[in-house]
Amino acid sequence: MIPADKAAVAPLSASDRLAAFVADYCYEAIPPAVRHEARRSLLNMFATAFAGACDPAIESLWGALAPFCGPQVATQIGRGGRVDAPTAAFLNAAAANVFDFDDTHPGTVIHPTAPVAPALLALAELRPDGRVMSGRDFLAAFILGVEVECRIGNAVSPGHYARGWHITATCGVFGAAAASGRALGLDALRVRDAFGHAAAQACGLVEALGTPAKSFGVGNSARNGLISAFAARNGAYGPARPLDGERGFLNLTCDDPRPEDLTMGLGETWELAENTYKPYPSGVVLHPVTDACLALRAAPGFDVSAIAEIVVRGHPLLRQRTDRPHVSTGREAQVSAHHTVAAVLIDGAAGLTQYTTARVCDPAVQALRAKVRMEDDPAMEVEAAVVSLRFADGRTVTEEVAHALGSRGRPLSDADLEHKLRTLAPLAEGCAPDALIDAVWSLEDLSDAATLLRHARP
Amino acid sequence: MIPADKAAVAPLSASDRLAAFVADYCYEAIPPAVRHEARRSLLNMFATAFAGACDPAIESLWGALAPFCGPQVATQIGRGGRVDAPTAAFLNAAAANVFDFDDTHPGTVIHPTAPVAPALLALAELRPDGRVMSGRDFLAAFILGVEVECRIGNAVSPGHYARGWHITATCGVFGAAAASGRALGLDALRVRDAFGHAAAQACGLVEALGTPAKSFGVGNSARNGLISAFAARNGAYGPARPLDGERGFLNLTCDDPRPEDLTMGLGETWELAENTYKPYPSGVVLHPVTDACLALRAAPGFDVSAIAEIVVRGHPLLRQRTDRPHVSTGREAQVSAHHTVAAVLIDGAAGLTQYTTARVCDPAVQALRAKVRMEDDPAMEVEAAVVSLRFADGRTVTEEVAHALGSRGRPLSDADLEHKLRTLAPLAEGCAPDALIDAVWSLEDLSDAATLLRHARP
Repeated sequence: MIPADKAAVAPLSASDRLAAFVADYCYEAIPPAVRHEARRSLLNMFATAFAGACDPAIESLWGALAPFCGPQVATQIGRGGRVDAPTAAFLNAAAANVFDFDDTHPGTVIHPTAPVAPALLALAELRPDGRVMSGRDFLAAFILGVEVECRIGNAVSPGHYARGWHITATCGVFGAAAASGRALGLDALRVRDAFGHAAAQACGLVEALGTPAKSFGVGNSARNGLISAFAARNGAYGPARPLDGERGFLNLTCDDPRPEDLTMGLGETWELAENTYKPYPSGVVLHPVTDACLALRAAPGFDVSAIAEIVVRGHPLLRQRTDRPHVSTGREAQVSAHHTVAAVLIDGAAGLTQYTTARVCDPAVQALRAKVRMEDDPAMEVEAAVVSLRFADGRTVTEEVAHALGSRGRPLSDADLEHKLRTLAPLAEGCAPDALIDAVWSLEDLSDAATLLRHARP
Repeated sequence: MIPADKAAVAPLSASDRLAAFVADYCYEAIPPAVRHEARRSLLNMFATAFAGACDPAIESLWGALAPFCGPQVATQIGRGGRVDAPTAAFLNAAAANVFDFDDTHPGTVIHPTAPVAPALLALAELRPDGRVMSGRDFLAAFILGVEVECRIGNAVSPGHYARGWHITATCGVFGAAAASGRALGLDALRVRDAFGHAAAQACGLVEALGTPAKSFGVGNSARNGLISAFAARNGAYGPARPLDGERGFLNLTCDDPRPEDLTMGLGETWELAENTYKPYPSGVVLHPVTDACLALRAAPGFDVSAIAEIVVRGHPLLRQRTDRPHVSTGREAQVSAHHTVAAVLIDGAAGLTQYTTARVCDPAVQALRAKVRMEDDPAMEVEAAVVSLRFADGRTVTEEVAHALGSRGRPLSDADLEHKLRTLAPLAEGCAPDALIDAVWSLEDLSDAATLLRHARP
């Protein structure tokens, strides 16, 4: 602990100010539009958690954790049976993110909800000290947690991800710690302690993307954030400046951080307002390409067998991230322009089915993949793409997309998000999407946020 | 998984070679001196774990974890009651390291045993698939785990620690994963997967030193290493080159890594042979200063009240690390030359008692601290120090220490280590140091390594 005399004279650090914001900010002061975006984020999280709940990667992690499971109070979304609260946080975060089909904070590429909401949901079911968490308390904690997570992400972007840190995991643990600390009613000093414990547990590697090892980072972000708040509540203290200290998280994991981003405009601008949701389970840069292919496929008389060549034109980032003509697994295919174009043109759809290893190995898809060529156009926006089909008879058709569906320029509607949930819920065992949708929209009025989970399990 | 055709043609990476070493190296090929050093390391680990078992930092972490505890099969060293295996690994690692009184690998400043041995001990008690872990299997896994941990440490030193990574935690998780993987009988590919999961969980901050947040890093290194091995066994795969990949652990956490250090002379030189043990619970650079003060204090007619000034001379690193005239807690005092000199000259001892907050606040100690002055001598070795006392009557006495007790130049004897264990065991509840000492020395012949723990609990 800082001796009282030192604490009194030192100006508040960014770590302190962010902690005080989490501990003290009034729910009523959060703009209604931000509260609504929070509900949209939760709807989307449940959708992708249903989709991921029984994925082999999640099964393999669950098998490793199951023998050590404690009191079974918390719901694993989309599955029967319960697990202990930190393990539920881990598994639900990992499941929500396993396909990278969850939400995206455009400025940082953080998937903001997966680390934060599952920690809070576990806490709501745990009822520490017998206290029920209201829907409003849940929303406040969620919004403030995402704010912390994304502000830390802003402060270390783009250097942090470029160096190789999986930013959803590394920044997510602070979001989960903040949200859990808020929900536990910690004061500012304790929230700062929770940040310290989170900093000591902030890990996740870009190198691990595409493998179940990615999910260790994301699952731990929720689990360890939750544990960090409990440890702080229990009197375990941390360093005075876990974020902006000389060797704090910012300097440690980024070569050119901007600590001012932690607190600039705090309580005035809201990171959650920037959140975006994916209509397709692929890399976000592929979404305009997918839109274009769906439009081309829908044209009357479209004949995929007559295609001689496909040209995909976009911002250079598109090629850098997705130029993968040869893929062998569904996971790889999610970031392959060649596979995406081929599967969408053949199937007329871009759902999880198109990114299964079975579709990747289909000879017709493989043959069409070989006809895809990529072209850079630095003048284009990242949200845009042009796809041209040249047919064997020499005819060419072109489709141009300025803003991909799901981007800030053309966001998914509330109805789109409901549709996404209804589409993905059947992948989990017997859940009740309609009741869950109602509960999420009316979360502000729920006396017990744990009600959400009643509709998220068989 | 790597497709079989790719795996066949690619030359073995350092990650693969290290994994194969862990999976396949024959116990009988390990030199007897290294096996003996392993037993010495274990004796020292039990000693410091006894000392730390009931420290407030450990209590505060245990309180946060207790509500989530699973099947109670594993011993918390020096305490009654049992906990689940990963939690035992966490708490025992944290306890063994909480005072930084555990062992030190000089080249990296890693405390090698704390992350590795507790993971193995928990596994020995867990008996996965009903399999008993023999003393030999335990020793093999421990030695190979430490080898991996310290080689990774070598490959990222000194840049990694200098940047702010708490190397015991960040490299320790690989040691725990390697040891657990070996003990579980994983093949090389699975051990490499365990490295991948460890890389996704390798965290710990220098910024957190002196606070309980440090123990999150060290505790997690043991816990997460153990979980990594279970996940790999359960089929969760990881990236192909978790250590030496483009954005693998080495490049991610160090600006100038030496990947060749991972495998150079593998099986020929042994990092454990370099291990050192502390006679005093303070920063290792303070040990020659402590030796000098103990010698000065032992002189006939020594009168502490007559001291006018104390000059401490040493390598510049001594001043850089320990120039702390004002300290307010026992933890800070462990790295304060001023406090160490004052407390040792007054008490004639340098045990845990001298580093309690009570001793730090003692007016006599505070008064003597104010008389300490530090001088740099770049020509001196880090293992050496000179302490001069100038008395009020003008008389001066000087003590020079070339090699601190416990350094490689003057290692603790087996008897010293037994003495350390006997001195610290009473800090925990009713344990049996003699039986434990016998069990550690005869570990090679034990049919069940878990026997060690029978003597390490009340």
